[in-house]
Amino acid sequence: MHLLTSTQLSREELLLLFEQAKTLQESKTIPQTMTGKILGTIFLEPSTRTRLSFETAMLRLGGQIISIPNAESSSLNKGETLEDTGRMISSFADIIAIRTPEKGQVAKFSTHSSVPVINAGDGTGEHPTQHLLDFYTIWKNRGTLDGLTLGLMGDNKNSRVLRGMAKMATVFDIKLIFISPDELQPDEEVLSYLKKKGREYHQVTNIGEVIDQLDVLEINRVRHEYFEDKQRALEIGKQFILNTETVRKGKAELIVLDPLPRINTVQTDVDDLPQAKYFEAVENGVFVRMALMNQLMQR
Amino acid sequence: MHLLTSTQLSREELLLLFEQAKTLQESKTIPQTMTGKILGTIFLEPSTRTRLSFETAMLRLGGQIISIPNAESSSLNKGETLEDTGRMISSFADIIAIRTPEKGQVAKFSTHSSVPVINAGDGTGEHPTQHLLDFYTIWKNRGTLDGLTLGLMGDNKNSRVLRGMAKMATVFDIKLIFISPDELQPDEEVLSYLKKKGREYHQVTNIGEVIDQLDVLEINRVRHEYFEDKQRALEIGKQFILNTETVRKGKAELIVLDPLPRINTVQTDVDDLPQAKYFEAVENGVFVRMALMNQLMQR
Amino acid sequence: MHLLTSTQLSREELLLLFEQAKTLQESKTIPQTMTGKILGTIFLEPSTRTRLSFETAMLRLGGQIISIPNAESSSLNKGETLEDTGRMISSFADIIAIRTPEKGQVAKFSTHSSVPVINAGDGTGEHPTQHLLDFYTIWKNRGTLDGLTLGLMGDNKNSRVLRGMAKMATVFDIKLIFISPDELQPDEEVLSYLKKKGREYHQVTNIGEVIDQLDVLEINRVRHEYFEDKQRALEIGKQFILNTETVRKGKAELIVLDPLPRINTVQTDVDDLPQAKYFEAVENGVFVRMALMNQLMQR
Repeated sequence: MHLLTSTQLSREELLLLFEQAKTLQESKTIPQTMTGKILGTIFLEPSTRTRLSFETAMLRLGGQIISIPNAESSSLNKGETLEDTGRMISSFADIIAIRTPEKGQVAKFSTHSSVPVINAGDGTGEHPTQHLLDFYTIWKNRGTLDGLTLGLMGDNKNSRVLRGMAKMATVFDIKLIFISPDELQPDEEVLSYLKKKGREYHQVTNIGEVIDQLDVLEINRVRHEYFEDKQRALEIGKQFILNTETVRKGKAELIVLDPLPRINTVQTDVDDLPQAKYFEAVENGVFVRMALMNQLMQR
Repeated sequence: MHLLTSTQLSREELLLLFEQAKTLQESKTIPQTMTGKILGTIFLEPSTRTRLSFETAMLRLGGQIISIPNAESSSLNKGETLEDTGRMISSFADIIAIRTPEKGQVAKFSTHSSVPVINAGDGTGEHPTQHLLDFYTIWKNRGTLDGLTLGLMGDNKNSRVLRGMAKMATVFDIKLIFISPDELQPDEEVLSYLKKKGREYHQVTNIGEVIDQLDVLEINRVRHEYFEDKQRALEIGKQFILNTETVRKGKAELIVLDPLPRINTVQTDVDDLPQAKYFEAVENGVFVRMALMNQLMQR
Repeated sequence: MHLLTSTQLSREELLLLFEQAKTLQESKTIPQTMTGKILGTIFLEPSTRTRLSFETAMLRLGGQIISIPNAESSSLNKGETLEDTGRMISSFADIIAIRTPEKGQVAKFSTHSSVPVINAGDGTGEHPTQHLLDFYTIWKNRGTLDGLTLGLMGDNKNSRVLRGMAKMATVFDIKLIFISPDELQPDEEVLSYLKKKGREYHQVTNIGEVIDQLDVLEINRVRHEYFEDKQRALEIGKQFILNTETVRKGKAELIVLDPLPRINTVQTDVDDLPQAKYFEAVENGVFVRMALMNQLMQR
């Protein structure tokens, strides 16, 4: 089975995954379930965090790595189709994590793969394991994912992290609040998905209006590449800066998340507050990816 | 011992290698002959298939990898000679697979290496392990390499795959047919080698003339970098497109091979025919490289 | 504990390290002290020797590797601070070796790292493990580091190798001779450090004046990037060419070292002389890095 989208896992599957991640994280010695297995990490767009997190997870489970760490090291430069590349790499690796520059490319790559493929980000498309580690971090800290209010601040229109998190949230009893200027509010695709799933959401333009209602605040930086007017991107970006003052207006048990790197999002003085969970989420990510690979390899 | 050229292995050595590859491929658990050993993969020209195939082979034998995945990650940029680089890397690795942009560079690299060096492609020079996996695939499917007719279609003048395959074929009782326009027929170096070895060959310009005689058809894409006239390269390239219709005119047991990536060579609808063996060859390549490394490390 | 500078290790710590490196180098089987551990190699400037040496050391100790082999494979491109990157990677790896383009960047990176960080070169700053392998090579060959005369030839003003070696030498009874034209003699920072430590040094412009006094000669190439006048860099560079004739004027037990790559430094005909120890130093480097990582992980 592949993991391609934020919507393909059920509530039960997610909770089982989180239980298994927690068991791994709490175990003194990690069961070496991947001995003799190889993970292929194919990153046609630069990444540090996601690639190294997957590789660390595989190594700590006793497995090994083959890697294309960037597009320059790949014969995709020679004009090979993603379908052929996927089929080829699935002759080598037992499981594959791949990032591509454009939406839909991971699905193409997976078409002829004989082994599980994990979408590690396909342009403006999906990045489901990011949501896994964010929701796992919330679940670990709060003990549940139901009855919470989740604020999503940033470019809700284009950010694959914010879009996908909104969709994955629908399997839980989570109230969503989108925090963006009007032009960066989610598009119809996301909103109609929420309506179909019967989930409550609100849209505001300013964090100040809702900070005291939030159990979780996820922030994602503005990506300048989506703006023709770079000056406008810069101005908008500054609206998403989060400082200590704002955090302190929120609930004591507020969880602040950011997929990192943070550029004009969370200020470094927030790091020392108990609400800051983004570095803990990086650590958690290794365990949730371990659990995911264990599951995908068993099916 | 190094593996540098397509002509250095005898008939007996090749057949022994294929037997050993087959034993590995059929074994339930791969003997961990490389435990504690390190393969260095030095790719000064981009590659996916060859590098990952070598690395997979080493990991599945229980060994480990150090790698220069592309020229940018190397201090060859600082002006170090290949001789010094080879000597240095042989202090680290127990065996080395290297690809270089220019002919003769792998031989230079191997001069002062204290460990076995495998030529994984040196520009227009040689790429012997590609032939190993192609001939192994034929041998596995037909049970022999004698009494066969092998068609080589593409740029027989410049392609290291086609040139080397023609030469390696001479240790078996193989009839060669070169399929190219006149300007891309093999040069005197290759033809005089075949004459010296007493092997029969024919030269035709069109696959249609000979498709019914072939036991094996190897196709390699035209490389545009060898043509000043890029438009001409494009036109010629199209002559080497292989579709289902042509394959069906051939023998039922025809084996179609392509080193991949395929660009204007085998059409995707051929993939589903039993004659298509190019993806099987990718899988086979891992085992023939395992057998090769086992052999080189024992001498 | 981190290893950031050439001055942080005491005489006793250095000698203990060399003893441990020698034990590892002489042992028939390397104790697998790093089983289950991961080294992160982060090279934001290209390197072959240093990165592969660290990786080889870790693999031979039974550990594993995660790597950013060049800046292109990193999300530092996205504008992440070195402090955040360091904190993040220390969630994955158990120890980190990092090279950066600019002085001071490794120290920044280490600020929030929860695991040991080794400076593998920070621009014009420091590269302490290079000195470790050079002094270890001298110690192995001579049995002591006291009572020796060490010549440092090249760009003594800018070279991190020469500057750091001069400083590290002060913990031993070593007489220093700087061999450079006036404009490339060490700056006040280095000279005042030597005075403070009470160590004797001399400054000459020509190797011929002092070759017969030297027990060790370390040469480092001129880096053209430090010269506005590239022609001048070329002229100066030629002054540091070392040939057989000059070596033969020195003591029979002279040890010639060069951090490599050698560009206008040691001529290849010197390689066959017993004085040439630069390739032995590369081999030694793996063992001294093993010993270092063992020590840093124990504290």
